[in-house]
Amino acid sequence: MTRITNVEVQVFDVPLAEVLTDAKHGDHTHFELITATITLANGAVGTGYTYTGGKGGRAIATMITHDLAPFLIGRRATGVEELYDAMQWHIHYVGRGGIAAFAISALDIALWDLRGKALNQPLWKMAGGASDRCKAYAGGIDLNFPLPKLLAGIQGYLDRGFNGVKIKIGQPDLADDIARIKAVRDLIGPDISLMVDANYAMTVDEAITAANAFKAYDILWFEEPTIPDDYKGFGQIAAATGVPLAMGENLHTIHEFEYAVADAALSYMQPDASNCGGITGWLRAAALCAAHDIPVCSHGMQELHVSLVSAQPKSGWLEVHAFPIDTYTTRPLVVENHLAVAPDTPGIGVAFDWDKLHQAHKGMHR
Amino acid sequence: MTRITNVEVQVFDVPLAEVLTDAKHGDHTHFELITATITLANGAVGTGYTYTGGKGGRAIATMITHDLAPFLIGRRATGVEELYDAMQWHIHYVGRGGIAAFAISALDIALWDLRGKALNQPLWKMAGGASDRCKAYAGGIDLNFPLPKLLAGIQGYLDRGFNGVKIKIGQPDLADDIARIKAVRDLIGPDISLMVDANYAMTVDEAITAANAFKAYDILWFEEPTIPDDYKGFGQIAAATGVPLAMGENLHTIHEFEYAVADAALSYMQPDASNCGGITGWLRAAALCAAHDIPVCSHGMQELHVSLVSAQPKSGWLEVHAFPIDTYTTRPLVVENHLAVAPDTPGIGVAFDWDKLHQAHKGMHR
Ligand SMILES: [Mg+2]
Ligand SMILES: [Mg+2]
Repeated sequence: MTRITNVEVQVFDVPLAEVLTDAKHGDHTHFELITATITLANGAVGTGYTYTGGKGGRAIATMITHDLAPFLIGRRATGVEELYDAMQWHIHYVGRGGIAAFAISALDIALWDLRGKALNQPLWKMAGGASDRCKAYAGGIDLNFPLPKLLAGIQGYLDRGFNGVKIKIGQPDLADDIARIKAVRDLIGPDISLMVDANYAMTVDEAITAANAFKAYDILWFEEPTIPDDYKGFGQIAAATGVPLAMGENLHTIHEFEYAVADAALSYMQPDASNCGGITGWLRAAALCAAHDIPVCSHGMQELHVSLVSAQPKSGWLEVHAFPIDTYTTRPLVVENHLAVAPDTPGIGVAFDWDKLHQAHKGMHR
Repeated sequence: MTRITNVEVQVFDVPLAEVLTDAKHGDHTHFELITATITLANGAVGTGYTYTGGKGGRAIATMITHDLAPFLIGRRATGVEELYDAMQWHIHYVGRGGIAAFAISALDIALWDLRGKALNQPLWKMAGGASDRCKAYAGGIDLNFPLPKLLAGIQGYLDRGFNGVKIKIGQPDLADDIARIKAVRDLIGPDISLMVDANYAMTVDEAITAANAFKAYDILWFEEPTIPDDYKGFGQIAAATGVPLAMGENLHTIHEFEYAVADAALSYMQPDASNCGGITGWLRAAALCAAHDIPVCSHGMQELHVSLVSAQPKSGWLEVHAFPIDTYTTRPLVVENHLAVAPDTPGIGVAFDWDKLHQAHKGMHR
């Protein structure tokens, strides 16, 4: 009765309230949300999802429909980790990251939703249970914002109860990055945590120069100073400057996380369950981080990661991302006393407001 | 007039004459051929392609149609390398390997086809011009063949003029692999080159045991003994046994090739232009190999790689793969005096027999 009988995929183009820009992906006008809903023979239904910055969503949906759904249908949904491994091998030749990682993530999250509903357990308990809440910071995609607008946004984060904020850097002139960091630090004072994210706009040498310049402003971490593929380059930046480094949003396989913990000298890891293999992949990355004493954080989809980050004994910070997926669910992210609070509902605790999603999508294609 | 005005994608399911099996991908009943035809404002037409072992083809086509074609249309086709880099950045967040690597490969090959036609140059000249012919071996996908059938196949390769042959290994019992290798060596005698390919069925320790056992049979190389992600594991196998190792068919980005040359102690590299970024990606991998004195070989699509391998000054061996894409072109692979001969026609020298492809596809879906 736990056999999978159907997999339904939907793709939504969700417009952003304004154009958001970072140093390497250019302008974001919208994000893509790809949902995968799995139905079992016993009538149980679970929904997982992934998202993109606006490209690849149709390819993800196509891989689910053509390659992974036919593989899953007829199998038992209960062996989530076995299904995860089997899906990875099933598409191995065209996989090991990229679109396949996103597609498998959405399905794995749906399987965890089914698992939680069957066990009557919320995700934060299934995923470790250390706590139901965690540190959280607001991450802006704000490279193109003029300084007054940047600062108004930061003030907005503080007003919403966050005690950590992150801005994009990677301006053509490093002096501009420094001026913005200084202005933000001046605004927030010494007690609010400040992170910066270059989206790999810099070479290793440029990042070393930048990191040294940032030291005056008490940066909690310097995120993706250079391309994520250059693990040893991260290690060089850390060794040369002592500035704490973070990455993870572009690591899609457990092997990539292994290279990162071996060579990148990270102070924080930021796996994203939407592209590192869903909850199964995220928990494996988290276990690797724990073994190397690296606090595990997250990237994107705060409405899901709040449960995963909270559940880890020595977790880092939840990113509250500028793609507001949580506002398209029935429970937008809850923040209490600076901490993000995980939902207590059985399953993944993310229930989409389908009407709102359909309307947003239609609005973009009108 | 060299602006791109149209990109047309087709997907063909091409049945194999019989079921072919390897140690990790299981049974192959067919392969997918994904073609991308680019038309310019001046009327010029170029066709590129990629292929899979039967999964992912629709996702590749979807990424081309939804994400890459809209990006290319309106741009000049002449700056092939710039377009290649721009495509990689365009889909970077969902890319860096996987489906994106296959999609970009097909488009890059189409751009090279246009370039060759515009310059009135065959690919082997554009790609280096060292020679118009190269060493070639027949690579079987034959793990499931009983020994008599395996040996009959090997005799068939010799009869077709090949002086190098490769078999799949990775049987549940190593003794069976050894018995098959011994039987093949006994059949072909000492003068024919023999390679073996485990499709990463082994752990590092198992591969060390196996490699030592294979030494008695003069193996030219041991291909993919363990997972392609474990570069340092390859290095351990090479150091422990001295047996020459090969890989490359699963390396999709220049960074993966960099890890491989740094850590995997390879004696041969086997990039596949269908999944490492087309001709631009293959040539960059080849340049890296040349800088590290690793002979560059190829994997799959012999009808195209014959030009690329021939063109390199210190090339290795062309794989004549068991997916017979070349027999669906107007010029199936030509072998003369044990050497594969590159086509002299302007462009990539691969012109599909569209009727034959359509009939094969229809035959599978009747
Ligand atoms: Mg980031
Ligand atoms: Mg192989």
